[in-house]
Amino acid sequence: MDFVGNHIISVDQFDRQDIARVFAVADELRVYAARERITRVLEGAILSNMFFEPSTRTRLSFGAAFNLLGGEVRETTEIKASSLAKGESLYDTARVLSGYSDVIVMRHPTAGSVAEFAAASRVPVINGGDGPNEHPSQALLDLYTIRAELTGQGKKIDGLSIALIGDLKYGRAVHSLCKLLALYDNLQFNLVSPPGLEIPQKLAAQLQAQGHRVQTYHQMEAGIRDVDILYVTRTQEERFPSQEEADRYKGLFRLNQLVYTQHCAPNTVIMHPLPRDSRADAQELDDDLNENPNLAVFRQTDNGLLVRMALFALVLDVADQVHAHSKPVTWFTANRSPAS
Amino acid sequence: MDFVGNHIISVDQFDRQDIARVFAVADELRVYAARERITRVLEGAILSNMFFEPSTRTRLSFGAAFNLLGGEVRETTEIKASSLAKGESLYDTARVLSGYSDVIVMRHPTAGSVAEFAAASRVPVINGGDGPNEHPSQALLDLYTIRAELTGQGKKIDGLSIALIGDLKYGRAVHSLCKLLALYDNLQFNLVSPPGLEIPQKLAAQLQAQGHRVQTYHQMEAGIRDVDILYVTRTQEERFPSQEEADRYKGLFRLNQLVYTQHCAPNTVIMHPLPRDSRADAQELDDDLNENPNLAVFRQTDNGLLVRMALFALVLDVADQVHAHSKPVTWFTANRSPAS
Amino acid sequence: MDFVGNHIISVDQFDRQDIARVFAVADELRVYAARERITRVLEGAILSNMFFEPSTRTRLSFGAAFNLLGGEVRETTEIKASSLAKGESLYDTARVLSGYSDVIVMRHPTAGSVAEFAAASRVPVINGGDGPNEHPSQALLDLYTIRAELTGQGKKIDGLSIALIGDLKYGRAVHSLCKLLALYDNLQFNLVSPPGLEIPQKLAAQLQAQGHRVQTYHQMEAGIRDVDILYVTRTQEERFPSQEEADRYKGLFRLNQLVYTQHCAPNTVIMHPLPRDSRADAQELDDDLNENPNLAVFRQTDNGLLVRMALFALVLDVADQVHAHSKPVTWFTANRSPAS
Repeated sequence: MDFVGNHIISVDQFDRQDIARVFAVADELRVYAARERITRVLEGAILSNMFFEPSTRTRLSFGAAFNLLGGEVRETTEIKASSLAKGESLYDTARVLSGYSDVIVMRHPTAGSVAEFAAASRVPVINGGDGPNEHPSQALLDLYTIRAELTGQGKKIDGLSIALIGDLKYGRAVHSLCKLLALYDNLQFNLVSPPGLEIPQKLAAQLQAQGHRVQTYHQMEAGIRDVDILYVTRTQEERFPSQEEADRYKGLFRLNQLVYTQHCAPNTVIMHPLPRDSRADAQELDDDLNENPNLAVFRQTDNGLLVRMALFALVLDVADQVHAHSKPVTWFTANRSPAS
Repeated sequence: MDFVGNHIISVDQFDRQDIARVFAVADELRVYAARERITRVLEGAILSNMFFEPSTRTRLSFGAAFNLLGGEVRETTEIKASSLAKGESLYDTARVLSGYSDVIVMRHPTAGSVAEFAAASRVPVINGGDGPNEHPSQALLDLYTIRAELTGQGKKIDGLSIALIGDLKYGRAVHSLCKLLALYDNLQFNLVSPPGLEIPQKLAAQLQAQGHRVQTYHQMEAGIRDVDILYVTRTQEERFPSQEEADRYKGLFRLNQLVYTQHCAPNTVIMHPLPRDSRADAQELDDDLNENPNLAVFRQTDNGLLVRMALFALVLDVADQVHAHSKPVTWFTANRSPAS
Repeated sequence: MDFVGNHIISVDQFDRQDIARVFAVADELRVYAARERITRVLEGAILSNMFFEPSTRTRLSFGAAFNLLGGEVRETTEIKASSLAKGESLYDTARVLSGYSDVIVMRHPTAGSVAEFAAASRVPVINGGDGPNEHPSQALLDLYTIRAELTGQGKKIDGLSIALIGDLKYGRAVHSLCKLLALYDNLQFNLVSPPGLEIPQKLAAQLQAQGHRVQTYHQMEAGIRDVDILYVTRTQEERFPSQEEADRYKGLFRLNQLVYTQHCAPNTVIMHPLPRDSRADAQELDDDLNENPNLAVFRQTDNGLLVRMALFALVLDVADQVHAHSKPVTWFTANRSPAS
């Protein structure tokens, strides 16, 4: 696709070549995220970071990514504090905000809302999550991380085997990641969920139709053997009809160091879109994995910064100018070698 | 008036010469709002953008305006999160915040609060709306838009005819706009409201005393004939004694394309301070007007950025230095030709 | 201590030499807080300003301090809007946020939380207040103000006499200030509180063990005679078991101009960590003191900016580079001579 001036709404917009372009730019931007140099390529540009649903992590990640390119960030965090609460249409909100901004990131609880908003915007809009629907930058950062982890092991995305574990019914991160992975060749998907939280049938069929092997598991131990990647998700409590129903599923699958040692192949990479629920009744990913060097969850969030910087650089057409606007860093910078 | 170092609290501070000065600076700043160039004239300056009442649009507009001049923005959005909730006086808040800031924008639900705050501040304060009382930058951007729209039609503010439609009792935007318009010569005001929501008698008398023609209407169709400008407002629900009373007035006057075609002169300009209420029971300005080229509501909000940039430039005394601190823009910029 | 790359969690980290270093840097930075020049030494650096408990003043002070050094600020203000509400551990939050940031300021309602957070962070963390426990930058700015006020009177911290007045049981500002003052020689502490709100016995004993004179008062008038400094605090309502219990103590001690004139030595300096409660039933520091030139409360908050700038400059190792990255200011700057 042509990134310049375009909206990023869905993973369906991306083919393998587009993904390769994003990842190449993300690789180029690593020096700035690592504070080895700074760049001012977007000095004077304004991101409107519109979060109409709570999210600290994703909001800060987009904001920091824009700052790292030299731009400024204006922000909202509350749906109640907004004109939307006075009956303003998404069309009006988009027309107004696009007059203030060079690019807009939007998160909103309603599926389809960001696409509707983008249709009225005069500047590029990036979907920061529209309810149960899409969150494309999460899928891209997950895939970027898979690529990076496999490269370290001398493997490629083509031919990988991955176990997707937990709430596969409501987890949009899993759905979007599956769609991107499906663009590659000859993958093995182990779909590991409690009965009732299986991946939507249509998505499983689509994976098979694209030539991948798909196997369903209701027990975690069997599903996590002999894969390259474990992708664990929390129960998406806020998507369930009631808290009671969500609670039925909480804490059913728990991956800890003992389970990992007993059932996983050496160097199986552990991923999770975060936040992980560390409360006693959840713990889908136990804290005792924190020292496991294959735990990639914090490398995922670090990579999120790179991927979001890359998306901004591409839609605003500065990917080729970044280095020309760079300067040395003279302050103390922490050791940012890959996180354990 | 002398803008430098001064507070902007009320439209009463402005005479025609002051307005002309603001508009001349706003015209000069259009290249920066249009991202044709950037300016860094306020690099290192800090705006404290204090919103003690919800407002996404106005808050973002002031913040973006300051960023576009090169300055930084610190912000608060919640009255409950503030020291005011621990019994701190406006005097103390002003003394403290003015130590952190070069200029302060303040919105607060209480009439007179911003003036009280400004009296204790050691830096210039701009009123971002003090409850039912004043919102001077809104009135200035409305007048700036009227001037721009009329200029396109070869007309001037002197001699214009305008229909003010809707809740004229509680709508502070209407009150402030009337005061500014009254400074010009020989205007026709059609005051169109439901019985009970008429403009305050004192204000109507003042307009007449200043030599303008004032006519009251309780039916929309008659009031909107043969005017240059339609200025439509929503019912100010939050100012009514009760929601029930507000609901009695909701949706009484609805301007849509059919009404416009049947009753308005060609090229009658349609304005609204926004947000417009697009819910089924309101719709004071129907979505089917969105393709009408005379719908100026989004040009209004775009102009708001210019007027707020001009106010900052004037009170901080950088209007003459803006271009000297400018640089080219090298990123993708959307088509920002005047919005339809 | 070695400031570079270090966390600032507790006043216990500081000896006299460390304090002297902070104050020397703060003195150097005064020209920037006074907008005589700007500096861009932290251009491109990102502060994550994480406030998981309401605080307008402290949040804006840290944010403005970082902006004044040229850096950018990303921020959160709501515990409910955060991943912590989804059961995320402080460990995870720290690992994620430190990937986005060059330095983190954190306020949190739980004692010890910031230290726990800092242990997992890969970038320096500054404690912005962890519930009833610590708020080291407040203690440092208080001490910096005491030094500045006494210097104006030809006195030193060694040998000073200070009356601490009000809620000495829950007031963390008082506790931390006492610990810093205790590093100096031969002080007189008048501890003035209602029965039941005395300073913790352990802290009083510690002051005496370090060679200082400590005297307890339950009447204000006797306690405020013949001291150099009055340090007044509000009742820390939010720390009491119930509002009813807090209300029992509210407004017991009220310092106003009459009491000051009748009981205090000339030029006794009046301090307060702010916010002061100006409601009729509180008024621990009456508004009629606002014109008293010895009221130092707004000099305290102005100094807070300097001390926080100094902490950032030290932990990020740019204290010696600040002037090399400076530029002239060309906008209007208010009269920032010491506040009355």
